[in-house]
Amino acid sequence: MAATRIQTAIKLLLQEAEELCIGSQIAELDRIPSALEFSRDYYAKNTPVVIRKAISWPALTKWTPDYLVQTLNDKNVDVAVTPNGYADGLATQEGKEYFVLPLETQMKLSELLNKLDDPMGAIYYIQKQNSNFSLDFPELAEDIRQEDLDFAQQCFNKPPDAVNFWLGDERAITSMHKDPYENLYCVVAGHKDFILIPPHQLSCVPRKTYPTGIYKRKPCGQFYIDPIADEATEWVSIDPLAPDYANYPEYAKAKPLKVRVNAGDILYLPNYWFHHVQQSHKCIAINFWYDMEYDSRYCYYRMLEELTAKR
Amino acid sequence: MAATRIQTAIKLLLQEAEELCIGSQIAELDRIPSALEFSRDYYAKNTPVVIRKAISWPALTKWTPDYLVQTLNDKNVDVAVTPNGYADGLATQEGKEYFVLPLETQMKLSELLNKLDDPMGAIYYIQKQNSNFSLDFPELAEDIRQEDLDFAQQCFNKPPDAVNFWLGDERAITSMHKDPYENLYCVVAGHKDFILIPPHQLSCVPRKTYPTGIYKRKPCGQFYIDPIADEATEWVSIDPLAPDYANYPEYAKAKPLKVRVNAGDILYLPNYWFHHVQQSHKCIAINFWYDMEYDSRYCYYRMLEELTAKR
Ligand SMILES: O=C(O)CCC(=O)C(=O)O
Ligand SMILES: O=C(O)CCC(=O)C(=O)O
Repeated sequence: MAATRIQTAIKLLLQEAEELCIGSQIAELDRIPSALEFSRDYYAKNTPVVIRKAISWPALTKWTPDYLVQTLNDKNVDVAVTPNGYADGLATQEGKEYFVLPLETQMKLSELLNKLDDPMGAIYYIQKQNSNFSLDFPELAEDIRQEDLDFAQQCFNKPPDAVNFWLGDERAITSMHKDPYENLYCVVAGHKDFILIPPHQLSCVPRKTYPTGIYKRKPCGQFYIDPIADEATEWVSIDPLAPDYANYPEYAKAKPLKVRVNAGDILYLPNYWFHHVQQSHKCIAINFWYDMEYDSRYCYYRMLEELTAKR
Repeated sequence: MAATRIQTAIKLLLQEAEELCIGSQIAELDRIPSALEFSRDYYAKNTPVVIRKAISWPALTKWTPDYLVQTLNDKNVDVAVTPNGYADGLATQEGKEYFVLPLETQMKLSELLNKLDDPMGAIYYIQKQNSNFSLDFPELAEDIRQEDLDFAQQCFNKPPDAVNFWLGDERAITSMHKDPYENLYCVVAGHKDFILIPPHQLSCVPRKTYPTGIYKRKPCGQFYIDPIADEATEWVSIDPLAPDYANYPEYAKAKPLKVRVNAGDILYLPNYWFHHVQQSHKCIAINFWYDMEYDSRYCYYRMLEELTAKR
C-alpha cells in the first residue's frame, strides 16, 4: 500500500512535469540574454538553454593545433588515458563491474595531437576538471573573454569555481552523470553532442554504488583496472547509447534530450541535470562551473533520491 | 517498510532544509532591489523578503478614512461579514466542521468605517479578491504607483492577475492557506502580521477536505452556516494562534515564521507559502497577485502532496 503510494507520487511527479512541458525540450536563443532574462527564464526554473553564436572570442579562429602547440611552447599537458574512451565511467574486469578513473599522464601537446589522429591504440582526452584552463594554460587566457558570460555570472553572483579546458576526439565519451554546479559550456572548435535528462526524472535513471578502480597499463601496454581499496562511487548504470532495458526497465520511461553545441555556442546546463557528452574530432571546449545554490528544489531532489534509493 | 521509507524521505527533506537554513527566516531589505537581485536572491529560491519603507505612494499619507469617504463619494463597497472574523475559514455548527465563505454585502464606506469602530456585533472586512482595487476603486488609482513594483514585475514578466484592496480591523483574520500566486503585499496604513510556513513543510501542515458552507443571517441577525450542496474545500486544519496538537501532532514540527509588515513596506510572498494574516485597526493594504510559473519545484511539491495525503 505504501510502496504503491511512493509509485503513485513519483508517477504524479513525472506526469505533472510532462503536462507542463518541463524538461521536454532545450530552449535556444540566438543572442545573449540580459542577466534578468537569464535568471528569470532559465536559472530560476533550473532549465537549460543553448545560446547560438554567443561567443566571439579570438580563440574561435585562433585555436588551431599549430597555434596551440606554438603558444603553449609545446609544453607537457595532463592527459587522461583509457582503453575505451570513458575517463570516468563503468567497465568490467573478470566479471566485476567497476567505476574506473582514467590513467593520468603527461605528454607534449604535439604528441597528444598525433595520438588523437591515430585511430589505433589508447584514447587520450584533456579533461582534467580541476580548473585546468586557469591553472595550466595561462598563455591562452587572453584568447577568451569571460565578460561574455557576465549575463550568467551576475545571476550566479560569484566567480566560477573552476574553468576547464577540454580537448579530445570522437572516441572520448563522458558517461552519464550529474554535477552540483551551474555549468556554462562553451565550444570553441568542432561540436559536442549532449544527452540530457532532467533531475526530476531521477526514478528513470538507474544508479548503483560501484567499487572504484583506476586504469593502469602493463609493460606491454595492456590496460587493466587496479581496484582502489575501500573506495566506492555511485554512478549511473545506464549507457544512453545502448540502454540495457532488460536490466534497467525503468530507463524506458526516461525522456533524454539531445542537443548539439557548435563552436561559438554556449550551453547553460543547470545543476543536477544528468548529462552524457560526445564530441567531434579535436573538439575544443572551455566550461565554467559555478557552485550551485542549495535551495528548496535541492531538498525536494534529496527526498526523491531517498524514495528511489535501492536497498 | 515502504511507509517508513516515506517517513524517512520526508524527514530528510525537512532536515536538509533546516541544515541549509531554507525557510528559517524572512529576509529584510531596506531598499528596493534591482530586478536581477530580486529574481536571483528571492524569486528563484521561492523565498520571501520584506522590503522596508519601499513604497512612497501618495496613498501613504492621503488614505485617511475621511479622504476615502470623500474621494469615493461614499459609494457602496463590497464587504465580507462574519460572526467571528474568519472570512474564508473553518467553523463548526451542530458538531459538524465546515469551510465557510463570508456573507457578502454592500454598504456605504462611511457605514463600514463606523462598523469597524463598533466593538460589538459582526465583523466586516473589505477583502474581495477579485482585483477589487482595479475594478471598484478607480478613484484611488492615482494614489499608488505601480512602477514602484517594476523590480518584481520585470521578474514575473507579466502584469498582475489581480490587484486587491483590503480594509479591516484587528478582529478580521485570514486563516492559514496558500495561493498559486506570486504575491506583493503592500501595507498602506497600520500593519499586518503574517505567520508563514514554507511549502516544503507541507507534512507538518494538517489539511482536510471540508463540506463548504456560507454564512447567512436570520432575521434577528444571528449567523448560521448554510451548507452548499455537493461542495467541498480542502483547507488547513490548524489555527496557528491556538494549535490543536492533540489532534494534529504533526504541526509540532512546523516552524512558522512571523513578520510584521508596516505601512510603506512590501512583503514578497512566494507561491505556495502558507500564510495566516492579522492586522491592526483600520489597516489598509493593496496586494498584487501574479500568476505563478509552474516549474519543477511545483512538480516536486505535487509529489510531496501525494505522499502526505490522508487516505
Ligand atoms: O565535455 C565533456 O566531455 C564532459 C563535460 C562535463 O561533464 C561537464 O562539463 O560537467
Ligand atoms: O490580508 C489578508 O487578510 C490576507 C492576504 C492574503 O491572504 C493574500 O494576499 O493572499
